[in-house]
Amino acid sequence: MKIGIIGTGIVGQTLAEKLSALGHDVVIGTRDVAATRAGTEPGRYGTPPFSVWQVQHPEVRLESFAGTAMHGEVLINATNGSGSIEALRAAGEANLNGKILMDIANPLDFSKGMPPSLTVCNTDSLGEQIQRAFPNARVVKTLNTVNALVMVNPGLVGGGDHHMFVCGNDVGAREKVAGWLKDWFGWKNVIDLGDISNARGAEMILPIWVRLIGALKTPMFNFKIVR
Amino acid sequence: MKIGIIGTGIVGQTLAEKLSALGHDVVIGTRDVAATRAGTEPGRYGTPPFSVWQVQHPEVRLESFAGTAMHGEVLINATNGSGSIEALRAAGEANLNGKILMDIANPLDFSKGMPPSLTVCNTDSLGEQIQRAFPNARVVKTLNTVNALVMVNPGLVGGGDHHMFVCGNDVGAREKVAGWLKDWFGWKNVIDLGDISNARGAEMILPIWVRLIGALKTPMFNFKIVR
Repeated sequence: MKIGIIGTGIVGQTLAEKLSALGHDVVIGTRDVAATRAGTEPGRYGTPPFSVWQVQHPEVRLESFAGTAMHGEVLINATNGSGSIEALRAAGEANLNGKILMDIANPLDFSKGMPPSLTVCNTDSLGEQIQRAFPNARVVKTLNTVNALVMVNPGLVGGGDHHMFVCGNDVGAREKVAGWLKDWFGWKNVIDLGDISNARGAEMILPIWVRLIGALKTPMFNFKIVR
Repeated sequence: MKIGIIGTGIVGQTLAEKLSALGHDVVIGTRDVAATRAGTEPGRYGTPPFSVWQVQHPEVRLESFAGTAMHGEVLINATNGSGSIEALRAAGEANLNGKILMDIANPLDFSKGMPPSLTVCNTDSLGEQIQRAFPNARVVKTLNTVNALVMVNPGLVGGGDHHMFVCGNDVGAREKVAGWLKDWFGWKNVIDLGDISNARGAEMILPIWVRLIGALKTPMFNFKIVR
Protein backbone atom coordinates (compact mmCIF):
# COMPACT_ATOMS: atom_id res chain seq x y z
CA MET A 1 0.00 0.00 0.00
CA LYS A 2 1.16 3.56 -0.66
CA ILE A 3 1.50 5.21 2.73
CA GLY A 4 2.36 8.85 3.43
CA ILE A 5 3.70 9.73 6.86
CA ILE A 6 3.56 13.43 7.70
CA GLY A 7 6.41 14.15 10.12
CA THR A 8 10.03 12.98 10.28
CA GLY A 9 10.51 12.78 14.06
CA ILE A 10 11.01 9.62 16.06
CA VAL A 11 7.35 8.61 15.67
CA GLY A 12 7.37 9.09 11.91
CA GLN A 13 10.70 7.27 11.61
CA THR A 14 9.55 4.32 13.69
CA LEU A 15 6.33 3.92 11.70
CA ALA A 16 8.14 4.34 8.38
CA GLU A 17 10.70 1.69 9.27
CA LYS A 18 8.03 -0.81 10.32
CA LEU A 19 5.65 -0.18 7.42
CA SER A 20 8.48 -0.27 4.93
CA ALA A 21 9.73 -3.56 6.39
CA LEU A 22 6.21 -4.92 5.85
CA GLY A 23 6.59 -4.16 2.16
CA HIS A 24 4.57 -0.95 1.93
CA ASP A 25 5.63 1.90 -0.33
CA VAL A 26 6.38 4.55 2.27
CA VAL A 27 7.07 8.25 1.79
CA ILE A 28 7.86 10.42 4.81
CA GLY A 29 7.17 14.14 4.68
CA THR A 30 8.85 17.25 5.99
CA ARG A 31 8.33 20.99 5.71
CA ASP A 32 11.70 21.64 4.09
CA VAL A 33 13.29 18.67 2.37
CA ALA A 34 16.70 20.30 1.92
CA ALA A 35 16.89 21.40 5.57
CA THR A 36 15.83 17.97 6.85
CA ARG A 37 18.40 16.27 4.60
CA ALA A 38 21.15 18.63 5.79
CA GLY A 39 20.16 18.71 9.49
CA THR A 40 22.71 17.52 12.03
CA GLU A 41 20.82 18.32 15.26
CA PRO A 42 19.57 15.36 17.29
CA GLY A 43 15.82 15.07 17.94
CA ARG A 44 14.01 16.16 21.11
CA TYR A 45 14.66 12.82 22.78
CA GLY A 46 18.29 12.56 21.73
CA THR A 47 17.58 10.53 18.61
CA PRO A 48 20.00 10.86 15.67
CA PRO A 49 19.22 13.47 12.99
CA PHE A 50 17.04 12.36 10.08
CA SER A 51 20.03 12.28 7.74
CA VAL A 52 21.61 9.50 9.78
CA TRP A 53 18.35 7.56 9.88
CA GLN A 54 17.88 8.05 6.13
CA VAL A 55 21.19 6.35 5.35
CA GLN A 56 19.98 3.30 7.27
CA HIS A 57 16.55 3.39 5.57
CA PRO A 58 17.14 4.25 1.92
CA GLU A 59 13.88 2.57 0.92
CA VAL A 60 11.84 5.30 2.65
CA ARG A 61 11.66 8.38 0.42
CA LEU A 62 11.78 11.86 1.93
CA GLU A 63 9.45 14.37 0.27
CA SER A 64 7.63 17.61 1.04
CA PHE A 65 4.40 17.50 3.03
CA ALA A 66 2.52 17.93 -0.25
CA GLY A 67 4.52 15.26 -2.08
CA THR A 68 3.96 12.87 0.81
CA ALA A 69 0.22 13.49 0.94
CA MET A 70 -0.01 13.11 -2.82
CA HIS A 71 1.79 9.76 -2.63
CA GLY A 72 -0.23 8.18 0.16
CA GLU A 73 -3.44 6.26 -0.34
CA VAL A 74 -3.42 6.32 3.45
CA LEU A 75 -1.91 9.17 5.46
CA ILE A 76 -0.55 9.29 8.99
CA ASN A 77 -0.20 12.55 10.91
CA ALA A 78 2.93 12.03 13.00
CA THR A 79 3.80 15.70 13.50
CA ASN A 80 3.96 17.49 16.83
CA GLY A 81 0.37 18.34 17.69
CA SER A 82 1.15 22.04 18.01
CA GLY A 83 2.13 22.11 14.33
CA SER A 84 -0.25 19.52 12.89
CA ILE A 85 -2.84 21.81 11.30
CA GLU A 86 -0.15 23.91 9.64
CA ALA A 87 1.65 20.81 8.34
CA LEU A 88 -1.59 19.40 6.96
CA ARG A 89 -2.40 22.73 5.29
CA ALA A 90 1.01 22.55 3.64
CA ALA A 91 0.19 18.99 2.60
CA GLY A 92 -2.78 20.43 0.75
CA GLU A 93 -6.45 19.77 1.35
CA ALA A 94 -6.89 18.29 -2.13
CA ASN A 95 -4.28 15.65 -1.29
CA LEU A 96 -6.19 14.66 1.88
CA ASN A 97 -9.73 14.58 0.52
CA GLY A 98 -11.37 11.17 0.64
CA LYS A 99 -8.33 9.53 2.24
CA ILE A 100 -8.07 7.93 5.65
CA LEU A 101 -5.90 10.18 7.80
CA MET A 102 -4.67 8.44 10.93
CA ASP A 103 -4.09 11.20 13.45
CA ILE A 104 -1.63 9.90 16.02
CA ALA A 105 -0.43 13.31 17.27
CA ASN A 106 -0.94 14.87 20.68
CA PRO A 107 -1.56 18.57 21.33
CA LEU A 108 1.25 18.79 23.88
CA ASP A 109 2.19 22.22 25.21
CA PHE A 110 5.76 22.34 26.53
CA SER A 111 5.68 26.13 27.00
CA LYS A 112 4.46 25.89 30.61
CA GLY A 113 7.25 23.53 31.67
CA MET A 114 7.31 19.81 32.39
CA PRO A 115 5.26 17.75 32.41
CA PRO A 116 3.57 19.24 29.34
CA SER A 117 -0.04 20.38 29.38
CA LEU A 118 -2.33 20.33 26.33
CA THR A 119 -2.90 23.14 23.80
CA VAL A 120 -6.54 22.04 23.41
CA CYS A 121 -8.74 19.76 25.52
CA ASN A 122 -11.99 19.20 27.36
CA THR A 123 -14.51 20.77 24.97
CA ASP A 124 -12.41 20.25 21.82
CA SER A 125 -9.48 18.16 20.63
CA LEU A 126 -6.77 18.09 18.00
CA GLY A 127 -8.58 15.26 16.25
CA GLU A 128 -11.70 17.41 15.94
CA GLN A 129 -9.71 20.46 14.85
CA ILE A 130 -8.15 18.44 12.05
CA GLN A 131 -11.51 16.98 10.99
CA ARG A 132 -13.07 20.48 10.94
CA ALA A 133 -10.14 21.93 8.98
CA PHE A 134 -10.28 19.10 6.43
CA PRO A 135 -13.93 18.01 6.34
CA ASN A 136 -13.42 15.59 3.46
CA ALA A 137 -10.53 13.71 5.04
CA ARG A 138 -11.54 10.56 6.93
CA VAL A 139 -9.81 11.33 10.22
CA VAL A 140 -9.26 8.45 12.67
CA LYS A 141 -7.60 9.24 15.99
CA THR A 142 -5.46 6.38 17.24
CA LEU A 143 -2.03 5.35 18.58
CA ASN A 144 -1.56 8.65 20.46
CA THR A 145 -1.66 6.90 23.85
CA VAL A 146 1.58 4.90 23.58
CA ASN A 147 5.15 5.66 22.62
CA ALA A 148 6.49 4.93 19.14
CA LEU A 149 8.09 1.58 19.99
CA VAL A 150 4.85 0.27 21.48
CA MET A 151 2.80 1.62 18.54
CA VAL A 152 4.51 -0.72 16.10
CA ASN A 153 5.14 -3.57 18.54
CA PRO A 154 2.50 -3.79 21.29
CA GLY A 155 3.97 -7.13 22.36
CA LEU A 156 6.91 -5.23 23.86
CA VAL A 157 4.81 -4.59 26.97
CA GLY A 158 2.86 -7.28 28.76
CA GLY A 159 2.77 -9.55 25.72
CA GLY A 160 0.37 -7.12 24.03
CA ASP A 161 -2.36 -7.66 26.63
CA HIS A 162 -3.55 -4.02 26.70
CA HIS A 163 -5.76 -1.71 24.65
CA MET A 164 -5.70 0.74 21.78
CA PHE A 165 -8.52 3.14 20.90
CA VAL A 166 -9.89 4.33 17.58
CA CYS A 167 -12.41 7.09 16.96
CA GLY A 168 -13.60 9.04 13.96
CA ASN A 169 -16.76 10.07 12.17
CA ASP A 170 -16.45 7.47 9.40
CA VAL A 171 -17.34 3.99 10.68
CA GLY A 172 -15.74 2.27 7.69
CA ALA A 173 -12.50 4.19 8.23
CA ARG A 174 -12.43 3.22 11.92
CA GLU A 175 -12.90 -0.42 11.01
CA LYS A 176 -10.16 -0.29 8.39
CA VAL A 177 -7.74 1.35 10.82
CA ALA A 178 -8.56 -1.19 13.54
CA GLY A 179 -7.76 -3.93 10.99
CA TRP A 180 -4.49 -2.30 10.00
CA LEU A 181 -3.45 -1.92 13.65
CA LYS A 182 -3.87 -5.66 13.97
CA ASP A 183 -2.33 -6.64 10.62
CA TRP A 184 0.56 -4.17 10.57
CA PHE A 185 1.55 -4.05 14.22
CA GLY A 186 -0.18 -6.92 16.03
CA TRP A 187 -2.67 -4.97 18.14
CA LYS A 188 -4.98 -7.59 19.63
CA ASN A 189 -7.39 -5.35 21.52
CA VAL A 190 -8.82 -2.26 19.82
CA ILE A 191 -11.76 -0.38 21.34
CA ASP A 192 -13.96 1.66 18.98
CA LEU A 193 -14.99 4.77 20.93
CA GLY A 194 -17.24 6.25 18.24
CA ASP A 195 -17.12 9.64 16.53
CA ILE A 196 -14.18 12.04 16.47
CA SER A 197 -15.34 13.98 19.55
CA ASN A 198 -14.02 10.98 21.49
CA ALA A 199 -10.54 12.21 20.62
CA ARG A 200 -10.99 14.47 23.67
CA GLY A 201 -10.92 11.38 25.84
CA ALA A 202 -7.98 9.77 24.04
CA GLU A 203 -5.89 12.96 24.11
CA MET A 204 -6.73 13.74 27.75
CA ILE A 205 -5.05 10.48 28.77
CA LEU A 206 -1.76 12.20 28.02
CA PRO A 207 -1.51 14.20 31.26
CA ILE A 208 -1.45 11.02 33.34
CA TRP A 209 0.63 9.26 30.69
CA VAL A 210 3.46 11.78 30.96
CA ARG A 211 3.24 11.62 34.76
CA LEU A 212 3.37 7.83 34.77
CA ILE A 213 6.66 7.99 32.87
CA GLY A 214 8.00 9.77 35.94
CA ALA A 215 6.37 7.46 38.48
CA LEU A 216 7.33 4.25 36.64
CA LYS A 217 10.64 5.54 35.25
CA THR A 218 9.89 4.13 31.80
CA PRO A 219 7.73 5.07 28.80
CA MET A 220 7.25 1.38 28.00
CA PHE A 221 3.72 0.81 29.28
CA ASN A 222 0.12 1.01 28.16
CA PHE A 223 -3.37 0.99 29.60
CA LYS A 224 -5.45 -2.16 29.73
CA ILE A 225 -9.15 -1.77 30.34
CA VAL A 226 -9.83 -4.51 32.86
CA ARG A 227 -13.45 -5.70 33.11
CA MET B 1 -11.27 4.92 63.30
CA LYS B 2 -13.52 7.98 63.24
CA ILE B 3 -14.27 8.70 59.59
CA GLY B 4 -16.22 11.64 58.20
CA ILE B 5 -17.64 11.32 54.72
CA ILE B 6 -18.67 14.61 53.11
CA GLY B 7 -21.53 13.87 50.69
CA THR B 8 -24.55 11.58 50.90
CA GLY B 9 -24.81 10.47 47.25
CA ILE B 10 -24.22 6.96 45.97
CA VAL B 11 -20.44 7.29 46.43
CA GLY B 12 -20.75 8.51 50.02
CA GLN B 13 -23.31 5.83 50.81
CA THR B 14 -21.20 3.03 49.33
CA LEU B 15 -18.10 4.10 51.26
CA ALA B 16 -20.07 4.61 54.48
CA GLU B 17 -21.62 1.14 54.25
CA LYS B 18 -18.26 -0.52 53.65
CA LEU B 19 -16.30 1.41 56.28
CA SER B 20 -19.03 0.94 58.82
CA ALA B 21 -19.12 -2.80 58.12
CA LEU B 22 -15.37 -2.82 58.80
CA GLY B 23 -16.10 -1.46 62.29
CA HIS B 24 -15.23 2.18 61.75
CA ASP B 25 -17.22 4.94 63.42
CA VAL B 26 -18.68 6.62 60.35
CA VAL B 27 -20.55 9.91 60.07
CA ILE B 28 -21.88 11.04 56.70
CA GLY B 29 -22.40 14.73 56.03
CA THR B 30 -24.95 16.81 54.16
CA ARG B 31 -25.67 20.50 53.65
CA ASP B 32 -29.13 20.36 55.21
CA VAL B 33 -29.75 17.45 57.56
CA ALA B 34 -33.51 17.95 57.80
CA ALA B 35 -33.92 18.17 54.01
CA THR B 36 -31.77 15.07 53.42
CA ARG B 37 -33.75 13.13 56.04
CA ALA B 38 -37.06 14.18 54.49
CA GLY B 39 -36.00 13.82 50.83
CA THR B 40 -37.96 11.39 48.67
CA GLU B 41 -36.29 12.08 45.30
CA PRO B 42 -34.09 9.32 43.87
CA GLY B 43 -30.43 10.11 43.17
CA ARG B 44 -28.95 11.04 39.77
CA TYR B 45 -28.44 7.39 38.87
CA GLY B 46 -31.85 6.20 40.07
CA THR B 47 -30.63 5.21 43.52
CA PRO B 48 -33.13 5.35 46.40
CA PRO B 49 -33.31 8.56 48.44
CA PHE B 50 -31.01 8.84 51.44
CA SER B 51 -33.90 8.29 53.86
CA VAL B 52 -34.44 4.78 52.47
CA TRP B 53 -30.72 4.00 52.67
CA GLN B 54 -30.56 5.38 56.24
CA VAL B 55 -33.19 2.90 57.45
CA GLN B 56 -30.99 0.07 56.17
CA HIS B 57 -27.83 1.61 57.69
CA PRO B 58 -28.78 2.98 61.12
CA GLU B 59 -25.20 2.67 62.33
CA VAL B 60 -24.10 5.49 59.98
CA ARG B 61 -24.99 8.85 61.53
CA LEU B 62 -26.14 11.73 59.36
CA GLU B 63 -24.82 15.13 60.37
CA SER B 64 -24.09 18.54 58.88
CA PHE B 65 -20.93 19.06 56.85
CA ALA B 66 -19.39 20.74 59.91
CA GLY B 67 -20.51 18.02 62.33
CA THR B 68 -19.11 15.39 59.98
CA ALA B 69 -15.76 17.13 59.61
CA MET B 70 -15.54 17.64 63.34
CA HIS B 71 -16.18 13.92 63.91
CA GLY B 72 -13.66 12.53 61.45
CA GLU B 73 -10.01 11.88 62.20
CA VAL B 74 -9.93 11.16 58.48
CA LEU B 75 -12.20 12.88 55.98
CA ILE B 76 -13.41 11.82 52.55
CA ASN B 77 -14.71 14.35 50.01
CA ALA B 78 -17.45 12.42 48.18
CA THR B 79 -19.42 15.43 46.96
CA ASN B 80 -20.05 16.35 43.34
CA GLY B 81 -16.89 18.10 42.21
CA SER B 82 -18.78 21.20 41.16
CA GLY B 83 -19.86 21.71 44.78
CA SER B 84 -16.82 20.38 46.64
CA ILE B 85 -15.17 23.66 47.63
CA GLU B 86 -18.46 25.10 48.91
CA ALA B 87 -19.20 21.91 50.87
CA LEU B 88 -15.73 21.94 52.42
CA ARG B 89 -16.09 25.61 53.35
CA ALA B 90 -19.32 24.70 55.11
CA ALA B 91 -17.44 21.87 56.83
CA GLY B 92 -15.15 24.55 58.25
CA GLU B 93 -11.44 24.98 57.67
CA ALA B 94 -10.66 24.47 61.36
CA ASN B 95 -12.26 21.03 61.15
CA LEU B 96 -10.03 20.07 58.20
CA ASN B 97 -6.70 21.40 59.43
CA GLY B 98 -4.06 18.75 59.99
CA LYS B 99 -6.35 15.94 58.84
CA ILE B 100 -5.96 13.68 55.86
CA LEU B 101 -8.66 14.62 53.35
CA MET B 102 -9.17 11.97 50.69
CA ASP B 103 -10.51 13.82 47.67
CA ILE B 104 -12.35 11.30 45.52
CA ALA B 105 -14.52 13.80 43.63
CA ASN B 106 -14.43 14.71 39.96
CA PRO B 107 -15.01 18.18 38.54
CA LEU B 108 -17.64 16.95 36.09
CA ASP B 109 -19.58 19.55 34.11
CA PHE B 110 -22.94 18.25 32.92
CA SER B 111 -24.08 21.67 31.68
CA LYS B 112 -22.71 21.10 28.17
CA GLY B 113 -24.56 17.80 27.71
CA MET B 114 -23.41 14.20 27.77
CA PRO B 115 -20.81 12.93 28.12
CA PRO B 116 -19.78 15.50 30.75
CA SER B 117 -16.73 17.70 30.34
CA LEU B 118 -14.65 19.01 33.26
CA THR B 119 -15.10 22.32 35.14
CA VAL B 120 -11.33 22.55 35.61
CA CYS B 121 -8.44 20.72 33.95
CA ASN B 122 -5.11 20.86 32.14
CA THR B 123 -3.32 23.62 34.08
CA ASP B 124 -5.26 23.13 37.34
CA SER B 125 -7.40 20.48 39.03
CA LEU B 126 -10.04 20.10 41.70
CA GLY B 127 -7.47 18.44 43.95
CA GLU B 128 -5.21 21.48 43.71
CA GLN B 129 -8.11 23.89 44.20
CA ILE B 130 -9.04 22.09 47.41
CA GLN B 131 -5.43 22.04 48.62
CA ARG B 132 -5.07 25.79 47.91
CA ALA B 133 -8.38 26.60 49.62
CA PHE B 134 -7.41 24.55 52.71
CA PRO B 135 -3.62 24.73 52.88
CA ASN B 136 -3.43 22.91 56.22
CA ALA B 137 -5.51 19.94 55.17
CA ARG B 138 -3.49 16.96 53.94
CA VAL B 139 -5.25 16.43 50.61
CA VAL B 140 -4.76 13.09 48.84
CA LYS B 141 -6.46 12.61 45.49
CA THR B 142 -7.54 9.02 44.92
CA LEU B 143 -10.41 6.68 43.94
CA ASN B 144 -11.83 9.20 41.44
CA THR B 145 -11.06 6.90 38.49
CA VAL B 146 -13.50 4.07 39.28
CA ASN B 147 -17.17 3.82 40.18
CA ALA B 148 -18.31 3.44 43.77
CA LEU B 149 -18.74 -0.33 43.70
CA VAL B 150 -15.18 -0.81 42.41
CA MET B 151 -13.78 1.70 44.93
CA VAL B 152 -14.74 -0.52 47.86
CA ASN B 153 -14.33 -3.85 46.09
CA PRO B 154 -11.67 -3.78 43.36
CA GLY B 155 -11.95 -7.57 43.06
CA LEU B 156 -15.30 -7.07 41.29
CA VAL B 157 -13.39 -6.44 38.04
CA GLY B 158 -10.62 -8.68 36.79
CA GLY B 159 -9.93 -10.10 40.23
CA GLY B 160 -8.48 -6.74 41.29
CA ASP B 161 -5.63 -6.91 38.78
CA HIS B 162 -5.67 -3.18 37.91
CA HIS B 163 -4.41 0.10 39.34
CA MET B 164 -5.34 2.94 41.63
CA PHE B 165 -3.47 6.24 41.91
CA VAL B 166 -2.68 8.47 44.87
CA CYS B 167 -1.20 11.95 44.82
CA GLY B 168 -0.80 14.76 47.33
CA ASN B 169 1.80 17.09 48.74
CA ASP B 170 2.25 15.15 52.00
CA VAL B 171 4.24 11.95 51.43
CA GLY B 172 3.18 10.48 54.76
CA ALA B 173 -0.47 11.11 53.96
CA ARG B 174 -0.10 9.43 50.55
CA GLU B 175 1.47 6.39 52.19
CA LYS B 176 -1.28 6.17 54.80
CA VAL B 177 -3.98 6.42 52.17
CA ALA B 178 -2.30 3.75 50.03
CA GLY B 179 -2.27 1.51 53.09
CA TRP B 180 -5.94 2.17 53.84
CA LEU B 181 -6.90 1.44 50.23
CA LYS B 182 -5.29 -1.96 50.70
CA ASP B 183 -6.56 -2.66 54.22
CA TRP B 184 -10.08 -1.29 53.84
CA PHE B 185 -10.93 -2.24 50.28
CA GLY B 186 -8.31 -4.74 49.06
CA TRP B 187 -6.51 -2.57 46.50
CA LYS B 188 -3.42 -4.56 45.52
CA ASN B 189 -1.79 -2.10 43.12
CA VAL B 190 -1.50 1.56 44.08
CA ILE B 191 0.74 3.94 42.10
CA ASP B 192 2.08 7.01 43.90
CA LEU B 193 2.13 9.81 41.33
CA GLY B 194 3.70 12.45 43.58
CA ASP B 195 2.43 15.91 44.54
CA ILE B 196 -1.12 17.19 44.20
CA SER B 197 -0.53 18.72 40.75
CA ASN B 198 -0.76 15.13 39.52
CA ALA B 199 -4.48 15.34 40.23
CA ARG B 200 -4.67 16.93 36.76
CA GLY B 201 -3.67 13.59 35.28
CA ALA B 202 -6.00 11.56 37.49
CA GLU B 203 -9.00 13.81 36.82
CA MET B 204 -8.32 14.05 33.08
CA ILE B 205 -8.84 10.30 32.81
CA LEU B 206 -12.54 10.98 33.31
CA PRO B 207 -13.30 12.07 29.73
CA ILE B 208 -12.25 8.69 28.37
CA TRP B 209 -13.76 6.94 31.38
CA VAL B 210 -17.24 8.31 30.69
CA ARG B 211 -16.84 7.44 27.00
CA LEU B 212 -15.75 3.89 27.79
CA ILE B 213 -18.98 3.38 29.72
CA GLY B 214 -20.71 3.96 26.40
CA ALA B 215 -18.34 1.81 24.34
CA LEU B 216 -18.27 -1.06 26.84
CA LYS B 217 -21.89 -0.64 28.03
CA THR B 218 -20.84 -0.99 31.67
CA PRO B 219 -19.19 1.17 34.34
CA MET B 220 -17.58 -1.91 35.88
CA PHE B 221 -14.02 -1.57 34.62
CA ASN B 222 -10.71 -0.02 35.55
CA PHE B 223 -7.35 0.80 34.04
CA LYS B 224 -4.38 -1.47 34.50
CA ILE B 225 -0.97 -0.06 33.69
CA VAL B 226 0.66 -2.89 31.75
CA ARG B 227 4.45 -2.86 31.65
